[in-house]
Amino acid sequence: MNHTDDSLALHTDKYQINMTQAYWQDGMQNRQAVFEVYFRKLPFHNGFAVFAGLERVIRYLHEFRFTESDIDYLREDGYSEEFLAYLRTLRFTGTLRSMKEGELVFANEPIMRIEAPLAEAQLVETAILNIVNYQTLIATKAARIKHVVGEEPCMEFGTRRAQELDAAIWGTRAAYLAGFGATSNVRAGKLFGIPVSGTHAHAMVQAYRDEYKAFAQYAETHKDCVFLVDTYDTLKSGVPTAIQVAKEFGDRIRFRGIRLDSGDLAYLSKEARRMLDAAGFTETKIYASNDLDEQTIINLKAQGAQIDVWGIGTKLITAYDQPALGAVYKLISIEDENGTMADTIKISSNPEKISTPGRKRVFRIVNKASGKSEGDYIALEHEEPQNEDHLHMFHPVHTYIAKFVSSFEARELHHTIFEDGSLVYPIPALQEIREFVQANLQVLWEEYKRTLNPAEYPVNLSKACWDNKMRLIEEVRQKVQQTMKA
Amino acid sequence: MNHTDDSLALHTDKYQINMTQAYWQDGMQNRQAVFEVYFRKLPFHNGFAVFAGLERVIRYLHEFRFTESDIDYLREDGYSEEFLAYLRTLRFTGTLRSMKEGELVFANEPIMRIEAPLAEAQLVETAILNIVNYQTLIATKAARIKHVVGEEPCMEFGTRRAQELDAAIWGTRAAYLAGFGATSNVRAGKLFGIPVSGTHAHAMVQAYRDEYKAFAQYAETHKDCVFLVDTYDTLKSGVPTAIQVAKEFGDRIRFRGIRLDSGDLAYLSKEARRMLDAAGFTETKIYASNDLDEQTIINLKAQGAQIDVWGIGTKLITAYDQPALGAVYKLISIEDENGTMADTIKISSNPEKISTPGRKRVFRIVNKASGKSEGDYIALEHEEPQNEDHLHMFHPVHTYIAKFVSSFEARELHHTIFEDGSLVYPIPALQEIREFVQANLQVLWEEYKRTLNPAEYPVNLSKACWDNKMRLIEEVRQKVQQTMKA
Repeated sequence: MNHTDDSLALHTDKYQINMTQAYWQDGMQNRQAVFEVYFRKLPFHNGFAVFAGLERVIRYLHEFRFTESDIDYLREDGYSEEFLAYLRTLRFTGTLRSMKEGELVFANEPIMRIEAPLAEAQLVETAILNIVNYQTLIATKAARIKHVVGEEPCMEFGTRRAQELDAAIWGTRAAYLAGFGATSNVRAGKLFGIPVSGTHAHAMVQAYRDEYKAFAQYAETHKDCVFLVDTYDTLKSGVPTAIQVAKEFGDRIRFRGIRLDSGDLAYLSKEARRMLDAAGFTETKIYASNDLDEQTIINLKAQGAQIDVWGIGTKLITAYDQPALGAVYKLISIEDENGTMADTIKISSNPEKISTPGRKRVFRIVNKASGKSEGDYIALEHEEPQNEDHLHMFHPVHTYIAKFVSSFEARELHHTIFEDGSLVYPIPALQEIREFVQANLQVLWEEYKRTLNPAEYPVNLSKACWDNKMRLIEEVRQKVQQTMKA
Repeated sequence: MNHTDDSLALHTDKYQINMTQAYWQDGMQNRQAVFEVYFRKLPFHNGFAVFAGLERVIRYLHEFRFTESDIDYLREDGYSEEFLAYLRTLRFTGTLRSMKEGELVFANEPIMRIEAPLAEAQLVETAILNIVNYQTLIATKAARIKHVVGEEPCMEFGTRRAQELDAAIWGTRAAYLAGFGATSNVRAGKLFGIPVSGTHAHAMVQAYRDEYKAFAQYAETHKDCVFLVDTYDTLKSGVPTAIQVAKEFGDRIRFRGIRLDSGDLAYLSKEARRMLDAAGFTETKIYASNDLDEQTIINLKAQGAQIDVWGIGTKLITAYDQPALGAVYKLISIEDENGTMADTIKISSNPEKISTPGRKRVFRIVNKASGKSEGDYIALEHEEPQNEDHLHMFHPVHTYIAKFVSSFEARELHHTIFEDGSLVYPIPALQEIREFVQANLQVLWEEYKRTLNPAEYPVNLSKACWDNKMRLIEEVRQKVQQTMKA
């Protein structure tokens, strides 16, 4: 390595440094800027996403500073001493409003809002997106899988296929908070207190070059036994040998289960169940793994597979069918030269890529009678929908699709995490986040939760918010016309 | 966090710890074991893979030890003090033979061979696969993209969509070694010395709420200018404004380029090229980005897009179309109770999942006349194909497909990295690895390098290696029959 890896301040895109330099030279670096984090499309065609990543973002912002090794590197890259001296003083002094980790989130609604001096807000963009995109993606994928599995335990087994080390541990944390029950990664257990699970691998059977000896030695050293039965031949060798060892050890062990890791899981699980039951091991569970995801699970269940515990690896930890979430970080308001905040917009020829300007609040509109959500409502900062009797909710693109809601509770989804640089939010325990996810899912109608073709959950703009957006679009249109004339 | 994150020793699957415990209790922990790392299928239907990850594996093995925080955690989990005392003494004392980073590698050939006391070899499996799988995947994807791009520069821009932080920096390193020219990630520049590139974002235009002011301020503070032209309207506003600023600043800046980040890149690049040329900026380059990969690039080129520099993000850093490589770690030989090495096999109902037993060496058979490779040749440890006149190369599944090769050079692909725990390999500079990749690609016929339907590169077993495999399969077959009779 060329420099010590003692800081994440440079875990950012080069252009952030270059823009910071331009702002600083122009005296703009301390203008108050407001950015929002949001994504434009739900991943996996799912009906909702599960927000994750806040804890890691908090740590990152809390520790944000350029170390001497960062400064040395930037000096080699040609930045001036004056600019480096300025960078050295930088800390995150802004305010972060964010959804809580485990909140359900939908397309085009702000997950986080960062208000900070322009330079700071700009520098932290890349790392925040890097964290939020991945962790939210995996929490969402895990929720999908858990949804089709139902009550049976799911375990995250994917470390060896994860995209490098951080993904393995933060991915498994995201899976756990979204409803998985355990991980195979011991470091994740150590760092996050996640239950860790695992028994033995094919290599142990090979090391003893004998299935019986391997199972027996495992039983000698472990009270709870799950035997992996597919090293040589599942039904002819693995299952009978597991049963034999379990009988011989009797009460000295708890024969918790057998694990199938290859072959036709529907057929093998049914046959293995029969063999176990016939031998009197009706309580012994069948664990299955091998490239499982929500599709294969739903099919295995349809075929009557006798699987009690699901081990999920590659397809979850890499979000195999859609390995990236496209959350973006957009400037929505900035202090102008007179100290007034001015809203900003990013235009695109692609209508859904046009940003929604202005500081906003997000409310979940929960029907008091049903306890279920009617949709989310995005209002400008000064609006108080929670104090209104009737709410006019209309589709942000097809504005003629509208409804009036009354007798509702408007739950505000953003919470203050940092206030002027101080961490004011008590980081919840992971267990608490896990329960929060389940409580949030209760508020959602089933139609939004199915994994295939879910109904579209309404995310609506307030009239004021919509008018403000139209006004900005018109402003830009006029400006472009002026440029053309010039 | 529950414990300090000061070690990677627990970055492993729980079953590795449990097996280690069983071995240790049985006095097997120090039996010499030989494992191989290989994958069964090339990613992306590519004709080859580019091996990456060795440097990170070296660091990991070099630093491998259980810290007090690891021990504390395992104690809470119920492991005995005697076992913990044993773990505390563990270091990696084995021998690692490996391909060099940047070597081209094919399906079913050993990339690495780990020979170590059983417990050590078992404990390091998970992290090694986690590292090698991801980095090799990304290096391979980058090589594919670079292949269709040709000589034009490629830049890696994907940090915000990467699967957590490690993936961003190790992924961009993999891309660089496989032929990319730069990254946007400054930390990757700091740690690995990769050239870092970037100018400004949409946010800067929004911050000034005026494209002209933003470009002008950037030009005030940066000699080399690439302007992002799609914040409001690429052709009506962005490009004309960039040209205007460049004209006004004249020699005070170098107008390096404009960057297109949305819209119809084929159309916009051609129009922008015309506008730049008409204004006399014929040397100004057009940078393009926006979900590019080898497919979109090949299509853009076919449409005559005027793109000079390619910025690649999401599709590369996540290996979007196949986000996991399935390299495995299999026991191929183990010391028996008499101190003799015995080869081992893993059987599967799936023929290509049957492992190839025994310590092996891998040779690239290069035809002396053409300088091109005839294929790879996997021989048992004692064989010396480099000393033979004629080599009988036959297909490892369809054994009747065979050829005789003469006048060849047999280049051995494995090198000793650790010997009995000592690092004996001088870690090459990244630049050197980058050149090594290009030299390796020279040895491959074009037919193996095309991105669509490449020819299948021959990876053959020696007769002795094949016979040994058949012998082991027969042994297992007989054993399974005995179990059934019992």
